[in-house]
This record gives sequence, structure tokens and C-alpha cells, in this order.
Amino acid sequence: MPRKVDHDERRLAIAAVVEQLVLEHGIEALTVRDVADAVGCSTSVVSHYFRSKLDMLVFTHRTVRLRVERTLLAAMDAGHDLVACLELLLPTTDERWRDWHTWFACWGMAPTDPSVNREWAAGSSEATDIFTRLVQTAQAGGTVDPTLDPVAIATELQLTVNGIASLVTQHRDGWPPERQRDLLCRLVGKIARA
Amino acid sequence: MPRKVDHDERRLAIAAVVEQLVLEHGIEALTVRDVADAVGCSTSVVSHYFRSKLDMLVFTHRTVRLRVERTLLAAMDAGHDLVACLELLLPTTDERWRDWHTWFACWGMAPTDPSVNREWAAGSSEATDIFTRLVQTAQAGGTVDPTLDPVAIATELQLTVNGIASLVTQHRDGWPPERQRDLLCRLVGKIARA
Repeated sequence: MPRKVDHDERRLAIAAVVEQLVLEHGIEALTVRDVADAVGCSTSVVSHYFRSKLDMLVFTHRTVRLRVERTLLAAMDAGHDLVACLELLLPTTDERWRDWHTWFACWGMAPTDPSVNREWAAGSSEATDIFTRLVQTAQAGGTVDPTLDPVAIATELQLTVNGIASLVTQHRDGWPPERQRDLLCRLVGKIARA
Repeated sequence: MPRKVDHDERRLAIAAVVEQLVLEHGIEALTVRDVADAVGCSTSVVSHYFRSKLDMLVFTHRTVRLRVERTLLAAMDAGHDLVACLELLLPTTDERWRDWHTWFACWGMAPTDPSVNREWAAGSSEATDIFTRLVQTAQAGGTVDPTLDPVAIATELQLTVNGIASLVTQHRDGWPPERQRDLLCRLVGKIARA
């Protein structure tokens, strides 16, 4: 099915351009025209792939999210421990820094829009599932107290990662990778104990 | 100085409109034209108060931030305890929910823009100062272990509040005020112990 593959690949390529433009110029400055120029096509070609700027942003949010979810699941399957898995989510690299910028930007979409709502709900629910699996694996391995409720611990870990990213986002110079990792490690230690 | 007062009041009124429009229609859909229409004036009048859409958003971010900082400081001065003060920051009301939406949206501005950078740096630094004062007061009152470093604890509390808000933002129905408060209370308990 080369045509379908092309279509999907084109959408992913456009999402990558959207992410970069939003980082460089800000979410408020994004236009379909800029996206078309950066991709090297006309706005009508972009419109063939996305119904609207909102549609493009929802897809970009999902694309970044699914990529990061895959990274996390692969690390878990490879047997990395809890802290090592969570570290992969922190904005310690240029790529992950850009991912977090995209997410925060996209959290400024309208909460009442059905497609935004659907994407946020999917993100929330999948994150809870993946974090819960991480916690259960850590409980089986003895690094998280097995008497703790895995879903509650998953929620605490998720807010910890989001919280660190929120501090880094606004003050990147103050948060070199080592500082992010040290804080994550200390907080996971507290959360993992009953 | 009535002219200066009028000018400042007009800017604040425009910021309130910006906040509401961003919540209703999304940061990506905001235009100076929409702001002018909602305020009931022409775009050239809006341009008299703000050089650009970015300038308007930076001012809106600061306005919301200063308002919430004042609320927090007033609660501290009134002798509210640590958890009661932090609760005031959570998106448990429509107003605070809108404030968090504005902040996340504005974190999607371009990090390399000098005015964005300045505003984020001021926000980071003032939040650290205020949270540190909160912790020191709690340490003097005996609710936070006095041997802990107040700045480190301030950072952990700040990321906890931001982290809870990040979860609520994407799944408001799943986070009634009571659930937010319970989680805050449990986490502050962990953070306050050595």
C-alpha cells in the first residue's frame, strides 16, 4: 500500500516541521503558510493532509506522545530499572526538550474542542497504563514497596516527571541533565517507600 | 496620573480578554483582530497598548502570574499553613483552571525570544523565592523538618503543584478538587520529612 504509506509519512514529516516551527517562533505565530513554506509545498497541499491548523497540532501532539511512549516501552522491555526508564522522559536532550515544548504549547489548545479532548484523554489514559506497568515491574523487582497501590504510585511518578519538565522548560540553563536526574532519583526514592 | 492609570487598566482588561479567548478557542487561534472585537475596539487601538501578539501574551502570562503570587503571599501573611497556601494554586476553581491553561499555552511561546525569556526567568525566580519563604515559615512553625534545605524543598513543592496541574489540565473530569487536595496533602507530607 505505497499510497497509504506515503500519506502517513507525509503527515509525520509535516508534524516534525510543526514541532520545529513552534519551538523557533512560538505556538502563537504558527500559520499553515509557514508550515507549507518550510515543507516546500503549497498551503493547498498541506490542506490535503490536515483539515486545519488545529488538526495539524492535535496530530503533532499525538505523534510526539506515541514516539516517547514507544521509547519508554522499549526501555522497560530491555529491562532498564524504574529511574532509568523515567530519565528517558526528562528534557535532558535537545530532542526531548523540544518534545516538552510541543506538549506545553499544545496544552494551550481549546479544552472544549472534541479532537483536543480526545487526544488529551488518550494521552492521560495511556500514560497511566504505561506508568502503572512500570511500577508493577519495579514492585516485582523489589525497587518499589509491593504494598503500595501501583496506580497511585504511577500518578505520583507521572506528576514528578511533568513537574520537573515544567521547571526546566522555563529555566533551561538552571537545569543541566545531572540536576534533573538527581532530583528525579531523590523523588522516586521517596515515592517508592511506604 | 489618570492617563497612566487608564493605560495600565486597559492593558489589564485586554489581558483578561486574551486569557478567555485562549481558553475558548485555543492559543493557536488567537488573533489581534479577535482581541479587538472582544474588547470592542479596532486593531489599531489594541496596537496602541501592545506592540504585537507576542507582547500581549507575555503581558498576559505576567499578569496571571503576579495575581496568583499576590494571592499566595496574602494567604501566607494571613497565617495559613503550608498545605492551605499551596491549595490556592491548584486548578480547583474555574478561575485557577483558566490561569493554568494560560500558563501552559504561554510556555509554547519561543524560548529564544528575549521578552519570553525574561518573563520566564522572572517567573522562575519569583516562584522559588516565594516557595522558599513558605518553607521557612513552615519550618519555623514545625510542619517541615527544620534540617532540610528550604530551597530544595521549595523546588520539590513547586514541581508538585505544577505536576498536579499538568495532570488536571488534560483530564479535568478525573480530578475533582478533593482529589487534587488529597494528593497535594499526601505529597507535601512526604516532602516535609527528612
